Amino acid sequence: MITWSSLSENEKKQALARPAMANSQQLKQTVGEIIARVEAEGDGAVLDYTRKFDCPDLKSLVLSQENIDALAAKVTPEVANAIDTAFNNIKTFHEAQVPSDIAITTTPGVQCELRFTALDAVGLYIPGGSAPLPSTVLMLGVPALVAGCENKLLCTPPNKEQLIAPEIAYAARKCGIDKIFLCGGAQAVAAMALGTETIPQVDKIFGPGNSFVTEAKQQVSQRADGAAIDMPAGPSEVLVLADEFANPEFVAADLLSQAEHGPDSQAILVSNSASLIEEAKAAVERQLATLSRAEIARPAMENARYILADSIEQAIEASNAYAAEHLIVQIENARDYLPKIKYAGSIFLGPWSPESAGDYASGTNHVLPTYGYAKNYSSLGLLDFMRRYTIQELSEDGMRNLGPAIMALAAAEGLDAHEQAVALRMQALKQGDA
Amino acid sequence: MITWSSLSENEKKQALARPAMANSQQLKQTVGEIIARVEAEGDGAVLDYTRKFDCPDLKSLVLSQENIDALAAKVTPEVANAIDTAFNNIKTFHEAQVPSDIAITTTPGVQCELRFTALDAVGLYIPGGSAPLPSTVLMLGVPALVAGCENKLLCTPPNKEQLIAPEIAYAARKCGIDKIFLCGGAQAVAAMALGTETIPQVDKIFGPGNSFVTEAKQQVSQRADGAAIDMPAGPSEVLVLADEFANPEFVAADLLSQAEHGPDSQAILVSNSASLIEEAKAAVERQLATLSRAEIARPAMENARYILADSIEQAIEASNAYAAEHLIVQIENARDYLPKIKYAGSIFLGPWSPESAGDYASGTNHVLPTYGYAKNYSSLGLLDFMRRYTIQELSEDGMRNLGPAIMALAAAEGLDAHEQAVALRMQALKQGDA
Repeated sequence: MITWSSLSENEKKQALARPAMANSQQLKQTVGEIIARVEAEGDGAVLDYTRKFDCPDLKSLVLSQENIDALAAKVTPEVANAIDTAFNNIKTFHEAQVPSDIAITTTPGVQCELRFTALDAVGLYIPGGSAPLPSTVLMLGVPALVAGCENKLLCTPPNKEQLIAPEIAYAARKCGIDKIFLCGGAQAVAAMALGTETIPQVDKIFGPGNSFVTEAKQQVSQRADGAAIDMPAGPSEVLVLADEFANPEFVAADLLSQAEHGPDSQAILVSNSASLIEEAKAAVERQLATLSRAEIARPAMENARYILADSIEQAIEASNAYAAEHLIVQIENARDYLPKIKYAGSIFLGPWSPESAGDYASGTNHVLPTYGYAKNYSSLGLLDFMRRYTIQELSEDGMRNLGPAIMALAAAEGLDAHEQAVALRMQALKQGDA
Repeated sequence: MITWSSLSENEKKQALARPAMANSQQLKQTVGEIIARVEAEGDGAVLDYTRKFDCPDLKSLVLSQENIDALAAKVTPEVANAIDTAFNNIKTFHEAQVPSDIAITTTPGVQCELRFTALDAVGLYIPGGSAPLPSTVLMLGVPALVAGCENKLLCTPPNKEQLIAPEIAYAARKCGIDKIFLCGGAQAVAAMALGTETIPQVDKIFGPGNSFVTEAKQQVSQRADGAAIDMPAGPSEVLVLADEFANPEFVAADLLSQAEHGPDSQAILVSNSASLIEEAKAAVERQLATLSRAEIARPAMENARYILADSIEQAIEASNAYAAEHLIVQIENARDYLPKIKYAGSIFLGPWSPESAGDYASGTNHVLPTYGYAKNYSSLGLLDFMRRYTIQELSEDGMRNLGPAIMALAAAEGLDAHEQAVALRMQALKQGDA
């Protein structure tokens, strides 16, 4: 247990330090080579990598509509209902985010507009690995659906049977995802960013992944012929703020929810109550013994930090310095403290709002800025699936009213042609007047 | 003059191809070294570079408030009025973009919120060079002001007298920019992203610049301890759509407005009228002879393209394929064609809406996605100076209502601890009920 007030500024930074991310030259080079091969060879390269890493017998990169339907039909009614509930809540919350176009007269005769429109083509990446992630399909697919993106494709690595988890097929179908491609890793990202014979090029790539996927997303986002990406990635993390009224079992369960994501997950408890911290630690040990993923959660919990603050205000100071992806506030009258909380990807208020609620079904998006990015990046939302452009239209009067200011500014910046474009028009108006 | 309908798909791409961007290993390495030195040596390195490139006698990186005031007082009343007019219009248009927070009940007892908040600290980069750019100060400074960013700093290279253009000081003061630092290039970007003894670290960096600035922005945006950036950059460009009713002098002036930005500027005219194209070409030659920046505009115009389309619809098809930063529509009843126009950073409708209007004073932002990025990036706007985060709060009823779905999804994904975080709460609720 670390006592916050005993730390120097530097020690405070250390106490909240995040682990370094894999960022080796080796990784950059390997991923660069994969991207170059997909660019040069297209489908052939993607098939080859996928056979090597995921499915030796893979015949086609396309999951047929027939297979999608057959897989979706295998989902149990209980899970189908749960996906439906989550889908509805996520849809409700993201529909509330639909922006309004703006049209305004800034000067008489000068009309300025801002319009929002859906991105045309989005690529959703769903990792494979130990567990299927239908929740991530919903978190990416629902906003793409609500935004109205015309082309929505999904890449996910196939299993040995050339198929994917039924839950992913079911969730994808609910979101109206047009096409599912059987590939993963850097090769999937490269295919979506650059296009192949089979996989169409997309405008923006969304979704989590391992270090290869993350590096590939960074690399294609740097290419003018590549794709935009959702946000920079980092290991998942939670910070729990708790006072003496918090239930230590709930606190422990929330810390462990984060820890089971991966051994590099960060879990931090900050409290003004030493006894709450002790009780939560004991509860962590008890609960760990019952978890099937204990071998993943245990190393993460060994790096967990327990910070004792003098007061709730001081605990919030530590939380603001950390800028957590998930911030759980198990403090009495939690909502009262919102004005003091500066940074978090998503905030979970009160005892009945575990991280799992937002991870799955409350309606908020679980794709969140981590690794301190909550200071300068946004939680994923509908706007990330849209783009904004402007329109302006000057009437003759608008030109008369604004022309002199434009000419003065163009002259001040030494841009003659800009000035002339207005001077010619002003002159034409005068002659028309005469 | 290129006839669009005679081109193959590949030739169409060629006709709209953009020049390759400077992206050499040499540039990457030089910029990487500058960033590393600023990181290691702080102010000393920034001062050293600035003395070398901009101002041999520079004493301090800070432009004092006294000097800001003295410089601002030197602006002529005509230019001050023009800046005031532009400021007011830009402010009006960006104030109209203030978003509303969202709070919604997705399931009874489940409250989800989306909140918008200003970024804390923003760094605005204003290039030096041949002409001062007060307009860019306004385009970055006004949205930062309207968003309510607490810390707004500006970096711009000093002249030999350790000062900056009066117009920049005047515009910065209008935008409430707290601090002006006398440095430019990659060293200024590095200083804002990483912080020095004098220059505070910012959350996001905005503004145009040369290839060093652009590369430095890319590099710091890739660092977890760096800063976010506004958007990827490319040479400025215009595409003019014109029909036989367009005034060829206006068309020529708009092409030249673009061309005078730099020899790598792109200017494209697409028309369904061969005679309009011929007249516009002749007008370009005539107007070029009168321009002080002809030596910059001429090489750009030598790369200009004149494309003849069979119809307005076909002209718009070419425009959509290009996805111009600036799209000027000098077609009769221009507004009627908006539904067919897919991509552009900003659209200028009708004969009285030259690019200079948006560059300076109509109210729209002149920081726009170029180089084809209009397909997947947005025009700069108020939202780029804000971030979004979410909040969720479940009541006891909310947990009762949503708990089973969360547990089913967690089980489907094999995430025990997520399931347990809900199971423990459901159990507590049951016991409370009993």
